[in-house]
Order: sequence, then structure tokens, then C-alpha cells
Amino acid sequence: MKVSVIGSGSWGTALANVLADNGHEVTLWGRNEETIAEIQTRHENNKYLPGAKLASSIQATTDLEHTVLEAEAILLVVPTAAMRQTCQNIRPYLEKRVNKPIIIHATKGIEQGTHLRMSEVIEAELADVMAAPVVVLSGPSHAEEVVDRQITTLSVACRDLSTAEDVQDLFMNAYFRVYTNEDVLGVELGGALKNIIALACGILVGLDFGDNARAALMTRGLAEITRLGTRMGADPLTFSGLSGLGDLIVTCTSEHSRNYQAGYMLAQGKNRRTVSSDVGMVVEGMSTTQAAAELAQELNVEMPITSTLQAFIYEDLPVDKAVDNLMLREGKTEALMKHHPF
Amino acid sequence: MKVSVIGSGSWGTALANVLADNGHEVTLWGRNEETIAEIQTRHENNKYLPGAKLASSIQATTDLEHTVLEAEAILLVVPTAAMRQTCQNIRPYLEKRVNKPIIIHATKGIEQGTHLRMSEVIEAELADVMAAPVVVLSGPSHAEEVVDRQITTLSVACRDLSTAEDVQDLFMNAYFRVYTNEDVLGVELGGALKNIIALACGILVGLDFGDNARAALMTRGLAEITRLGTRMGADPLTFSGLSGLGDLIVTCTSEHSRNYQAGYMLAQGKNRRTVSSDVGMVVEGMSTTQAAAELAQELNVEMPITSTLQAFIYEDLPVDKAVDNLMLREGKTEALMKHHPF
Repeated sequence: MKVSVIGSGSWGTALANVLADNGHEVTLWGRNEETIAEIQTRHENNKYLPGAKLASSIQATTDLEHTVLEAEAILLVVPTAAMRQTCQNIRPYLEKRVNKPIIIHATKGIEQGTHLRMSEVIEAELADVMAAPVVVLSGPSHAEEVVDRQITTLSVACRDLSTAEDVQDLFMNAYFRVYTNEDVLGVELGGALKNIIALACGILVGLDFGDNARAALMTRGLAEITRLGTRMGADPLTFSGLSGLGDLIVTCTSEHSRNYQAGYMLAQGKNRRTVSSDVGMVVEGMSTTQAAAELAQELNVEMPITSTLQAFIYEDLPVDKAVDNLMLREGKTEALMKHHPF
Repeated sequence: MKVSVIGSGSWGTALANVLADNGHEVTLWGRNEETIAEIQTRHENNKYLPGAKLASSIQATTDLEHTVLEAEAILLVVPTAAMRQTCQNIRPYLEKRVNKPIIIHATKGIEQGTHLRMSEVIEAELADVMAAPVVVLSGPSHAEEVVDRQITTLSVACRDLSTAEDVQDLFMNAYFRVYTNEDVLGVELGGALKNIIALACGILVGLDFGDNARAALMTRGLAEITRLGTRMGADPLTFSGLSGLGDLIVTCTSEHSRNYQAGYMLAQGKNRRTVSSDVGMVVEGMSTTQAAAELAQELNVEMPITSTLQAFIYEDLPVDKAVDNLMLREGKTEALMKHHPF
């Protein structure tokens, strides 16, 4: 199949490589001319995946029109903040086409201001120019390991199961195991919200707390994001699956995670405005924290980790007060914690 | 209060130290004369907690009668395989006493052969000579961090809530946060069964699988032990709490974990008979795997990770076949995986 990947960051590049491994004709679009030239000529993307050798069959380009016109399936892997504009940019080319492509996305975030999930943003902009409902690809997956062909398992979610199955067939191979799921809402929220907990874990570790404290925070973090997700209509079991618990684990326990790294830097007093540039990539968790804190208030869901983190990042809550909130100075029964977990 | 701790391994020693920090009169009993002398005179236990300085108020002894006769509360922290014999050893002294003590345990395992939980073993041997139902202390807690006074959170479970609250007060302090839970069954099973998944994770990592694969295995592992636990009558929410998910995380993602280390050694071809002595401590996960595999068969619960591990450790299943089983070569939907996770 002809598949186009829009977004040449670490995850877009790694997914393009999986698709090329599966024998598809892959076009990878990026905005940065140097990166694209490097992928096209040297089959490397050293800014985002240093040292990795990419499939030579990947066609890298900065030509968005060509990228969109040719593809039977389009995979969007751009930062959350760029998703709406990207959809608006590709819309004119999609309008021209008679046979519309399948649209897939692999971006983990919630749009600031509107609080929309990525599939909602995409459908708001493109619903009439795509072949089927949006498909979401999400799960525990460091790009560095995927491009190294290490075994990875993910969820693919679509409200139309047969479309999910088509996308499953597109990606599935011996090292990249993809499982269908019909709970689009839960899969998207799990992937987005877990970055909040990863930031909080990074802060704890940056302040020299140990594995015991981190495990407690992750346990309560999963409870908290499950609470918001189910209030929003997701299946609670999704949060116990690959795109919930699985992704939480991989993001909170590995140095590969940029959200974790950002939390670590925040703990050491770095300014939130400079953390993204220090990490060298977009830190989705910070804006997701803001969006989730607003959602929690709107929907009257208790999210003590999220609201503490929001106050710490955006409202100058002192770090010692934040840690007191995170490390549960009150509360005596676990059942109580299920409702007031800190 | 006068509290006696029976078992001077890493966890017994660390818990004795918490109790001493809280101002209790603590007696720590151990069988090994050298270890006991070292704790008593140098306030160190270098075999199990190298480098840690223990509270000098801890009275270490090999005199079991004195240990049992004096205590208002007795904490049993011996290996699973030694629990029944230990109960039989202390019974005569308990019989002599007019005021019976509270009995607490912090041992994570299932008795081989009988498949009884530790609280069941203790009550079978001592029900008529103790002050209240057994109390279980369990949760995500490396002894190395506890003795270093790093923040740690645990569950304390008893079918009599007021006894659980008494034990909570005994242990609770600024770095050791204890939460009550009435689901004794769930708390004990979570602590015991997570060691199976830690062994499996150690094997994966020993075979050079990455963080993505480990996160997937942990996700399915928690689903599998929750399935057995709920079939046995536990509250499924307990497995999402500190003594389920929390303990699973800490055991599967930290080099401190001896079960994880044992899995790593097994992956490198070490013989199961020598692994325990190589780790230098009892590896509870191996016998728990055997017990859980038998329970799963009896109760007709699917536990593919456990049964694969049992066949690998005890029935010479080749490692490549074991990995194929663990890494889910079949299955196409997550919902299916919830029931047949591999």
C-alpha cells in the first residue's frame, strides 16, 4: 500500500520505518529541510533517532501536496498543538481527491482551550474528506526501541472495527504487535493523560525520591486518570490495558521518556518555558496537565496529582508544597484514597 | 509498645528499624548468630542491607522464647517455606501467655502443596493463641529504601478493621505511610503473585528485550493475577492498589528486586536449583509460580504467563518456546487478550 506519514519526529520516523519493513511504499513528510535531506540521502534522522539506520525505501519529502495526493492511508504524527493547522494544510489536497484515504493518528495529547482529543480535532477539520472514521494508534512504545526492531505491542482503535483491522494489517509484523480496540476515547485519553503522571514521576525522582515513592505515585496516577476517563465515557478496562497501564509504565520508568526528563528538570528549578527546548522535543505533558486540570474542574472529578502539577507548573506553587500534596500526608484507608487518593 | 520481629532478613530488619524509629521497644529475632551479633553490637546487617545503619535501640537475639513472651505485637517475616514451622516453634510460648499478642505478617508467598496464603497458615497453627485475626502488611517497598527512610506507602489488611488501625498506628510515620484495607485475600495474593511477573520480566530483560516488551508483559501480568485473585474471592480493585499494581511496578522495574534478578539469571541459562543461592536470598517467585499454576488449573483460570513460566522453570520448556508464549504470537484484539492475554 501507499502510505504517507506526516511528521518526521522520532515517533513518525519510527512508524515510517515499520511500514517500510512491511513492504509498503512509504512517504515521510517533514517541515525541516535538513532532517528530510538526511533521511532521504543517508537514511538517518540523527536529531530524533541518533544512530538508527532507516529503511532506504522511505521517500522523505517536504512536498505536502505530493504526500497527500498519493497516499491510500495517511498517518498524522505531529505535535498536539500543530494538529489542527496540519489538518487545515492538507484539506485542500484531500478535497481534490476522488478516492479518499484512511486517516490514522499517533499523537498523544488534548488540544488546549477546546479540550478536544486528537481524533475530534481531525474529524472536525476533515470528516467529509476521509474514507472512514479516524484510527488511533497508541501504546507502550519508545521510538528508539521500535526503530531497533525490539518487540512492541500497541492498540489500534477505531469506532469502525473493520477499519481498525485494516490498519492492524498495515502495521503488524513479527516485532510490532498491534491489537484492535473499539474504545477510541479510552485509548486516546490513556495515551494523553499518562504524560501527566510521567511528569510528576520525573519531579519525584529529580528530588531524590526512590522507587517505592514512584510506584505509589504511579498507582494513584492511574486511578486518577481512569477516574477522569470513565467520567468522560471511556471503558475503565481500557486504562488497565496497553494504552493505559502499559503506556504509563513505559513512560514513567524509562529514561527515554521526554515527559519524565522534563519533570526531572522542573524539579531542579528549571523554568517551564525553557524545559521544552532543553529536552529538545515537544513536552506534551505540560499542556496536557493544563487541559486535564480544566476538564477535571468542569466535570467535577478529583485529580489531586494533576491539579498539584498544574499549580506547580503554571501558578508557582512551591516545590515543597507540591511534594506534600503528591506524597499524601493525609488519608488513612486505601478505600478512601480511591476517592481522595492524596 | 513492645514489638517483636521474627526474621532478620532484609525486610524484617528494615521493618524493625521503622518500629524503633517510632519509639517502640523492638526485639529482632534471627536464627543466624553472626547476623544477630552484628545487629546487636554494630547496628548493621551487612549480609542483607549492606551499608545501612540501624537504630541502636533494636535488641537482636536468637532467643525465641524471650522474643515471644515479651511482645504485645509479633511481626512474622520469614520465608514462605518456613512460615508453618515458625508458627509451630512459637506456639508453646504463646500458649503460656495470659495476654495474647497481635500477630502481623509481611511474607509474600503461597505455601507449596496446600496452596494456603500466609494468613491461613498462621491461623491454622495459632488461631487460638492470638489476640485478633492476623494482620497483613504489604505494598511496594524495597527494604533498602525503607531503611534509608525514603518515603514508602503500604497497605495493612485485616478482616477486623480496628486491629488494622492499631497496626497502622504502630508503623505510621513521616516516611512510612500505611493505609488500611479490609481485603486480606487480595492484599496477600497481590504481594505473592506479582513475583511471578517479576521473574518473567527478569527473563525478558535477560534476553535483551526492551522497555516496550516489559511494559506489555507487566500489563498482561496484572490482568492475569487479577483474574486468579478475583476467582479466589478478592476485590478486583485491590489489584489496582498499592499491594497489586504498586508492588508489581516496584518489583518489575527495579534492580533491587531479587525475583527480577533471578529471572535474569534463568534467562542466561543458570540452573533453577542454583539461582536462589546465587541471588543470596530466597526467591519466593519460583515456588509461587508452581503454586499459582496448580491453583489456576484447579480453578480453571487462564494464566498463560504463569503456566509458561512454570513449564520453563520446572519442566524444561526451551527458552525460545517460552518467549514465543510470553510475547503473544497470536491474538488480534485487546478484548480477546483480556480473556486470553497471550
